[in-house]
Amino acid sequence: MAGVVETIAFGQHNVRASQIFFRSSLSYGLVNLMPLVPGHVLVISQRRVARFRDLTPPEVSDLWTSAQRIGEVVERHYKGDALTMAIQDGAAAGQTVSHVHIHVIPRRRGDFARNDEVYERLDMDKDRTKRTEEEMAEEAALLARYFDDGNTNSTDGATSP
Amino acid sequence: MAGVVETIAFGQHNVRASQIFFRSSLSYGLVNLMPLVPGHVLVISQRRVARFRDLTPPEVSDLWTSAQRIGEVVERHYKGDALTMAIQDGAAAGQTVSHVHIHVIPRRRGDFARNDEVYERLDMDKDRTKRTEEEMAEEAALLARYFDDGNTNSTDGATSP
Repeated sequence: MAGVVETIAFGQHNVRASQIFFRSSLSYGLVNLMPLVPGHVLVISQRRVARFRDLTPPEVSDLWTSAQRIGEVVERHYKGDALTMAIQDGAAAGQTVSHVHIHVIPRRRGDFARNDEVYERLDMDKDRTKRTEEEMAEEAALLARYFDDGNTNSTDGATSP
Repeated sequence: MAGVVETIAFGQHNVRASQIFFRSSLSYGLVNLMPLVPGHVLVISQRRVARFRDLTPPEVSDLWTSAQRIGEVVERHYKGDALTMAIQDGAAAGQTVSHVHIHVIPRRRGDFARNDEVYERLDMDKDRTKRTEEEMAEEAALLARYFDDGNTNSTDGATSP
């Protein structure tokens, strides 16, 4: 119909079909209203759910295999050296749109270097104070207890709850 | 054998089995040597590959359905309100261990608020300068061309390459 603009729901927002550059069976790829750097795009689940835990296994698989393909494209197209892929899963993690979305961000050496502090904190692999083996084993054993079911094997070091 | 410590390869590092708290068919969950906040754990592919693009679809699915389960556990256990889940995919994105790994980080309101600048930049959803619909449609059409194949439908607005 003339004058009708096709839109899809992205949380509380309506996104025009013209922003969609990728469709799979369960996901969309969207260009971003406010890109952090050129090529910063979003991958969303077609079903509107707020949290990553709300997705079914097929939705998780489709979302991330889509992000994998999209990441390859934006890295190549925007001449990046790397990618940051992130989900802000809940308001306290910075999520403002209540609809699962992956940020796929092409990265280049030094792109955030103007502000060294920021760069350091974005570096989740950066050296910080190292813990002891014992501390780590203790935490691993503690967490392993949550996974004592038919689907996974707990580690040798873990004790049953 | 007495004295033999079971380890797994995490990039260039050997990780003791005692650090593993989760095993699925293709992935491991590891506690972290240098957690950014309590409960900051890693999910790695069992196969040692550097980049996310190197994973097969079954590996991508297993890795992220594992991260989904692990995220629920660490959010609950560490009394978080949210999760940050991120891959630093390549050195320019801050990756220092050449082996695909997801950071799963329980988040709480205000946890990074001491440094407001950092918090703003970590907020990938934060308001920045908004682009026009035309700019966005143009970029979407451009990116859609990369996906013109049997598996996905390009958007109406996209033209063929």
